[in-house]
Amino acid sequence: MSPALLRHPRFISLEGGEGAGKTTAINAIRDWLARHGHEVVLTREPGGTPLAERIRGLLLDRHEGAEPLWPEAELLLVFAARAQHVREVIRPALQRGAFVVSDRFTDSSYAYQGEGRGLERGWIAELERRAVGIEPGMTLLLDLDVKVGRARTTGRDLWPDRIESEHDDFFERVRAGFRQRAMEHPDRFAVIDAGQSPPEVARDVAEAVSRFVQGQAG
Amino acid sequence: MSPALLRHPRFISLEGGEGAGKTTAINAIRDWLARHGHEVVLTREPGGTPLAERIRGLLLDRHEGAEPLWPEAELLLVFAARAQHVREVIRPALQRGAFVVSDRFTDSSYAYQGEGRGLERGWIAELERRAVGIEPGMTLLLDLDVKVGRARTTGRDLWPDRIESEHDDFFERVRAGFRQRAMEHPDRFAVIDAGQSPPEVARDVAEAVSRFVQGQAG
Repeated sequence: MSPALLRHPRFISLEGGEGAGKTTAINAIRDWLARHGHEVVLTREPGGTPLAERIRGLLLDRHEGAEPLWPEAELLLVFAARAQHVREVIRPALQRGAFVVSDRFTDSSYAYQGEGRGLERGWIAELERRAVGIEPGMTLLLDLDVKVGRARTTGRDLWPDRIESEHDDFFERVRAGFRQRAMEHPDRFAVIDAGQSPPEVARDVAEAVSRFVQGQAG
Repeated sequence: MSPALLRHPRFISLEGGEGAGKTTAINAIRDWLARHGHEVVLTREPGGTPLAERIRGLLLDRHEGAEPLWPEAELLLVFAARAQHVREVIRPALQRGAFVVSDRFTDSSYAYQGEGRGLERGWIAELERRAVGIEPGMTLLLDLDVKVGRARTTGRDLWPDRIESEHDDFFERVRAGFRQRAMEHPDRFAVIDAGQSPPEVARDVAEAVSRFVQGQAG
């Protein structure tokens, strides 16, 4: 019925909660790929295109006044942005032979909107097949104790956004959601211990990318 | 699997293409209901809440530069706005006993995104069940020849929006989509000949509302 999901070998996503060190990890991936002669496109979600960044604004703004963003609307906005992102940025870059490294992708929807907000997984899977159609060849999960991550980000943002303003039990569910995704897709996930120092995280990330890319070539 | 759709007897939607005279019709509905002592909430789609109106902006802006809005993203934005609209405006109004009259509702998605853009009907039906969960007790379709409707709107808007800028064959598919919905749901739809004069349209609309509301009461 709904179309199949295509896994692309040059598409890498990075997942993890607050304070897990995604910036350090992305720089490590970019450096490794560039050093090995690959074109790299760095992008992020929600966002990645001008229109999708405007949707990001709707998602992350702490809306003044009384209107809450309902979970169903949050999920559909996330996938609307992703539909644009895939068609405008990710697919064209992959088609010309570049690597694409995305700071968050569909696994975040399973973790945040699925486990975090309690929306049904089957619905997310259907949106993934119909609106996205592609999944990363490799996903790096920066796994970190929730309290440690929250302590790292405290004070970083003067005005935490709508997601950052959630409570610890929300982030515990999100972390469990990511770990469950990793368990269910061991062929695609590499789980990195994000409790280490930034150089150690960067080293583990580079090793994982090296194994993955050289595994593809071999 | 996915939840059932609830039909609400005080929820009325108005559907139709460009230039069909929806404003005339809405005024006729409001006048009839107010004259008979009912509280009436008038609303519109896409929109109806501050957040949903911001999504409307994303849908109708003619985006500068190169980024097209892809059909899948259009569909998901429409349903994100509708998820907010139902939960923030429509359900609360119905629950306190008001009539709700919406300028467009889910039938527009079957017509514009389904027939117009070619997206699969089964997907739209699933979004309707999961993100909306409610359908009107009565839907008035203002049916009008596409060329007549287009002629009526020419010159009305100095800058036609993204949808208004489509070609006639798009609007022919949309009209066919609406008529198909009406054929499939004769218990809910009243089809009004919008080629008549405004007073005739207003009279037919008031008659249809009268039959519907008095049928409910009886």
